[in-house]
Amino acid sequence: MLRNHSLLWARHASGLALRQQIASKFCFPTATHSVKDIKSPTDRPITIHGHLHRKPRIHAKRTFAELRDEEGNTIQIHMAPEFTDQALIDLLASSGPEDSVVVSGKIQEKPPKKGSTATEYEVAVSHFQNLNSGGIDAAQLDKLKHANPSQIPPQFRYLQLRTPYYQNALRTRSKAVNYIRNLLIEKFNFLEIDTPLLFKSTPEGAREFLVPTRSPDRFYALPQSPQQYKQILMSSGFSRYFQIARCFRDEDLRADRQPEFTQVDLEMSFVNDKRQVMKVINSVISDLWNKVGNKPIYTLNEDSHLIRVFSDTQDPATFNPVTYEEVLSKYGIDKPDLRSSLSFVDLLNHFKPTKNSDSFGVLEACVLRHAFDPAHNYKIPRSLTSDENYKARKPIVIAIKTPEDVKQWYRKFVDKNVLQMNDHFDEHELFKKLNLAPGDILAFSSRARRSYENPTPLGRFRQISIEEFPDKWNRPIVQEDGSLEINYDRSEISVGSWVIDFPLFSPVEMESQDKDFPVYSESAIESTHHPFTMANLEDYDLLEHDPLAVRGEHYDFVLNGVEVGGGSRRIHDPLIQEYVFKSVLKINNHEQLFGHLLKALAMGCPPHAGIALGLDRLCAMLVGSQSIRDVIAFPKNQSGTDPVVESPTDVPTKTLREYYIQKL
Amino acid sequence: MLRNHSLLWARHASGLALRQQIASKFCFPTATHSVKDIKSPTDRPITIHGHLHRKPRIHAKRTFAELRDEEGNTIQIHMAPEFTDQALIDLLASSGPEDSVVVSGKIQEKPPKKGSTATEYEVAVSHFQNLNSGGIDAAQLDKLKHANPSQIPPQFRYLQLRTPYYQNALRTRSKAVNYIRNLLIEKFNFLEIDTPLLFKSTPEGAREFLVPTRSPDRFYALPQSPQQYKQILMSSGFSRYFQIARCFRDEDLRADRQPEFTQVDLEMSFVNDKRQVMKVINSVISDLWNKVGNKPIYTLNEDSHLIRVFSDTQDPATFNPVTYEEVLSKYGIDKPDLRSSLSFVDLLNHFKPTKNSDSFGVLEACVLRHAFDPAHNYKIPRSLTSDENYKARKPIVIAIKTPEDVKQWYRKFVDKNVLQMNDHFDEHELFKKLNLAPGDILAFSSRARRSYENPTPLGRFRQISIEEFPDKWNRPIVQEDGSLEINYDRSEISVGSWVIDFPLFSPVEMESQDKDFPVYSESAIESTHHPFTMANLEDYDLLEHDPLAVRGEHYDFVLNGVEVGGGSRRIHDPLIQEYVFKSVLKINNHEQLFGHLLKALAMGCPPHAGIALGLDRLCAMLVGSQSIRDVIAFPKNQSGTDPVVESPTDVPTKTLREYYIQKL
Repeated sequence: MLRNHSLLWARHASGLALRQQIASKFCFPTATHSVKDIKSPTDRPITIHGHLHRKPRIHAKRTFAELRDEEGNTIQIHMAPEFTDQALIDLLASSGPEDSVVVSGKIQEKPPKKGSTATEYEVAVSHFQNLNSGGIDAAQLDKLKHANPSQIPPQFRYLQLRTPYYQNALRTRSKAVNYIRNLLIEKFNFLEIDTPLLFKSTPEGAREFLVPTRSPDRFYALPQSPQQYKQILMSSGFSRYFQIARCFRDEDLRADRQPEFTQVDLEMSFVNDKRQVMKVINSVISDLWNKVGNKPIYTLNEDSHLIRVFSDTQDPATFNPVTYEEVLSKYGIDKPDLRSSLSFVDLLNHFKPTKNSDSFGVLEACVLRHAFDPAHNYKIPRSLTSDENYKARKPIVIAIKTPEDVKQWYRKFVDKNVLQMNDHFDEHELFKKLNLAPGDILAFSSRARRSYENPTPLGRFRQISIEEFPDKWNRPIVQEDGSLEINYDRSEISVGSWVIDFPLFSPVEMESQDKDFPVYSESAIESTHHPFTMANLEDYDLLEHDPLAVRGEHYDFVLNGVEVGGGSRRIHDPLIQEYVFKSVLKINNHEQLFGHLLKALAMGCPPHAGIALGLDRLCAMLVGSQSIRDVIAFPKNQSGTDPVVESPTDVPTKTLREYYIQKL
Repeated sequence: MLRNHSLLWARHASGLALRQQIASKFCFPTATHSVKDIKSPTDRPITIHGHLHRKPRIHAKRTFAELRDEEGNTIQIHMAPEFTDQALIDLLASSGPEDSVVVSGKIQEKPPKKGSTATEYEVAVSHFQNLNSGGIDAAQLDKLKHANPSQIPPQFRYLQLRTPYYQNALRTRSKAVNYIRNLLIEKFNFLEIDTPLLFKSTPEGAREFLVPTRSPDRFYALPQSPQQYKQILMSSGFSRYFQIARCFRDEDLRADRQPEFTQVDLEMSFVNDKRQVMKVINSVISDLWNKVGNKPIYTLNEDSHLIRVFSDTQDPATFNPVTYEEVLSKYGIDKPDLRSSLSFVDLLNHFKPTKNSDSFGVLEACVLRHAFDPAHNYKIPRSLTSDENYKARKPIVIAIKTPEDVKQWYRKFVDKNVLQMNDHFDEHELFKKLNLAPGDILAFSSRARRSYENPTPLGRFRQISIEEFPDKWNRPIVQEDGSLEINYDRSEISVGSWVIDFPLFSPVEMESQDKDFPVYSESAIESTHHPFTMANLEDYDLLEHDPLAVRGEHYDFVLNGVEVGGGSRRIHDPLIQEYVFKSVLKINNHEQLFGHLLKALAMGCPPHAGIALGLDRLCAMLVGSQSIRDVIAFPKNQSGTDPVVESPTDVPTKTLREYYIQKL
């Protein structure tokens, strides 16, 4: 059977279809109902439109099909000679999946299914128009569409987007964005202000996209964030600015990155405490989860248990802060997944590492309790020790199989001179501290006191362990009655936390012979986040002689091990800002790169602070997806190609010439 | 007096300011009040923050300054030794305009001004901090800031933006955008979906910006509109899409264009009548004017008088449509300013033009009634006849000074063989038709029957006349009691109208020797708007042999002579779309340029229609501005430069190399 009706049609000599045939695709009755409105039989015909959800089923005396409306609901359409013209029956018989159609007819009850008492309805069709054919591709992809839409080839994104999961993903995103906007505007009195996308090349961090102009030697750059413009807005008398901002980053597209992405970007002036910004974000996140996603979200209480954070409209929402130093020493990373209670034990009273102990002198252990049944043979999962899973160094991982191991696990490491016992070594205290038992897995590793490995080897071990053992070491949830619950599905809950007191600067990592240990420059330092962040005032004097010891007024919002937002109090004093550029970061051309910002600060710019949230990631988490691609209508693939429109493409040399450029 | 306190400060050897001095800029009390909250004296100190609005006034015993808060309201601050530390008095004395400050003190009544009974309040300062200096630039620009902020040099945009007019412009824009979003989402059930900005080069019409990638021979292009992606969304099961979309156009920046601009972009599927889209826009525009701008807006009734269009929530809002043919023959342009009642008289029954009458055979006149006082000498204003004001041809413009002129104005043109009398020439009928009187100005010109001059020479004459005589020929407004009012300020009202039934295609204009008359290709035609617009079904059969006679399903929204939006029902049938590309427009590489769109249509894409509104222009009109720059935070100037950040800039050759390009 031919799928494409157009092919059956008579034609003008030129190939133009006949007008009456085209009219049947453009003139059609308006829908009176959507499927969800249909709740009883009707005496008069109603009209619905949508797509054929499956191939029509042709029986001897009647023909059936399933229509899916714009909301994704389906209803059976039923044609029979008693109430349907033969021409329409033939037309339906030649129709295929995903054809767009209009159907009119009376609603009647479907004959009840065997054993079912539910009443279902169908349309007894009196009018039918096929508005456009789904074609051969829709027919061939039909099975996949029903069985596994995520596997639809990416060039057919438009078919994939018609399926319920993706419809929900983009609808939720639209809702979330609108919720955020109204919250910021109505509750917090923010103004939405757009800033330019044709910006200036200011190389810092990630690579930027360039945009040649039709003036020689003149290029715009697409912004990595509206950071500088929003600070200039703070100098422009707007005290609360936000923007849902498109940003661009020309990086190698790892696992789940996109060259263009979206930030909820905001800034507030006359801020004297970072908690003023955190309060706004607490409200955004708690409302998104409680009201848009209808999912619970938690934070850590002072006992390090999980307590639920309710919608800000019911309760002032608070996500609690932890310091960088604390998360680094407990979890070995600045963005810990706090759904797991796994944390580290400091072994420094007992041992010191032998290798490189001057620079990497801290020794920590992580115990995976009851990881296996000691009554049976056991091999440590490969993922925990595999080289591929670690950037460079790995922790030492051992299975505690016997009571002997519990007491004597360290002996062989001391013997092999991996560990050295300290003067304070105390077997009894160590025993108590680790509290090992057969069936546990023990991992230990060294790190630098000020660690720039992030995650540390042991932090990475923790991440892998959490994935490897999805149902173990859940952090207890405090129930309404005060009891603790650990039996829950980790993938169903979200835990948010602020991380504060980051080091303001980091040393530049050097190329090194040592494959295991990173080596850092002794003189060159860079901003941990960006050069506009203010120092903690307590550490201010250290800027001069020990900038690496300075903590910054930066704050990250971390959700389930992902940094979903980061911000800071900014430097509004042009002289300190210049000092940081010149004397700390030693940026030679800071006037050329950032002179415009210094000038804007110098015109009485008030103190200010702000934050940016990764909207794509937030929305993905809200719909329970691992990939931001699911919440982007037309994502690029890992080679930066849009498989639907097949961009990027080649461009004629002639065109390039207008922009004063040529190919290399 | 030194403006910059920092210079007075002791310093570390390195140039780092002392911590206690910096602390005074970062640690300050939180505001308890804004100026508008202050309505009575207080017993306890309150705190407000903001900028010093002017230079402080230093008297022998007391010092005054004016503080402007974030909302632009001002209050006097008053320092005197009775309640203020001398150190603070000295600090204020050394402060200058635009310094950002925090002030605490009790509120007290100001001594009443002579002759005034109004009670005003001031702050009796007990605490004062200068948070950042406005510097020398703010001091030098202070006069301009108060007298004429529009003249502040553009690199100091942040100072300009602090002034009331610009604050209001951006605040109104934020409100307008939020209003539109909520209206589309809540009332009309639209989804907001973002589409990529890294798009594909598809040269059509305006020049696009290219974005080189780090793959050789691969370029993205920035989109001129989301047109193709939104049509693909219609094939993706989203029945009502919108987006506030950033668009890019690399054109020469005439008077009031920007290389990046913003559209309210929407599309609806299963549309069988363009009025479904128009209804949404009627609601958007009427609500923006009535509810956000609080301004009246009008449309033409059947008598061509103005009737008010109220907010859609009070009344179903309707802007009436006029056809392209009607506006062209009455006003000589497709986007007439309908606030003026000036319209044309067809002279064809009486004369035909001598020159080029085969192609330009229509003869029309426009009468400016009572343009001058015939009792005095009069010269026609130069603007009406100056070459600079016309693209090429000009109408003939004559002043009717005497009763003789009224009757015999055409004689000399007939004698000089500019006009030829027709067989139907009838002096009496002509006299009645033109109804001339001494004091009128008469202009006449020819045009093509299907005119692609837009405006026609006479249409341009009408535009100039409307500007030249701002208080004449107002179109009557129908008052509530039915009476007509013409005495109003044209700049205070807005008139909206739909224009429909445009020609779908236009001939390509050729280079020509004839400086006066345009010459068109006989074979090459192009889309009047874009190639995705459907033909009026009535004209469908003409596609084959007379495409220039085909009217399209396009509709423009015209406001005060500006096209603020345009849209159409689209071609959803891939075969007609291909026919238009191939057989009408003769685009050779249509598969390469638009193959992705044809594929998306071919998967059962439903019928659809949409529109895009120019948001910048709408917002400018809403705040009563002539320039879209006023409603853009950081506009580019006419050479495409952002004067604040000084983009675009040169980029090192090394960087270009990473993108496989080099300078020419």
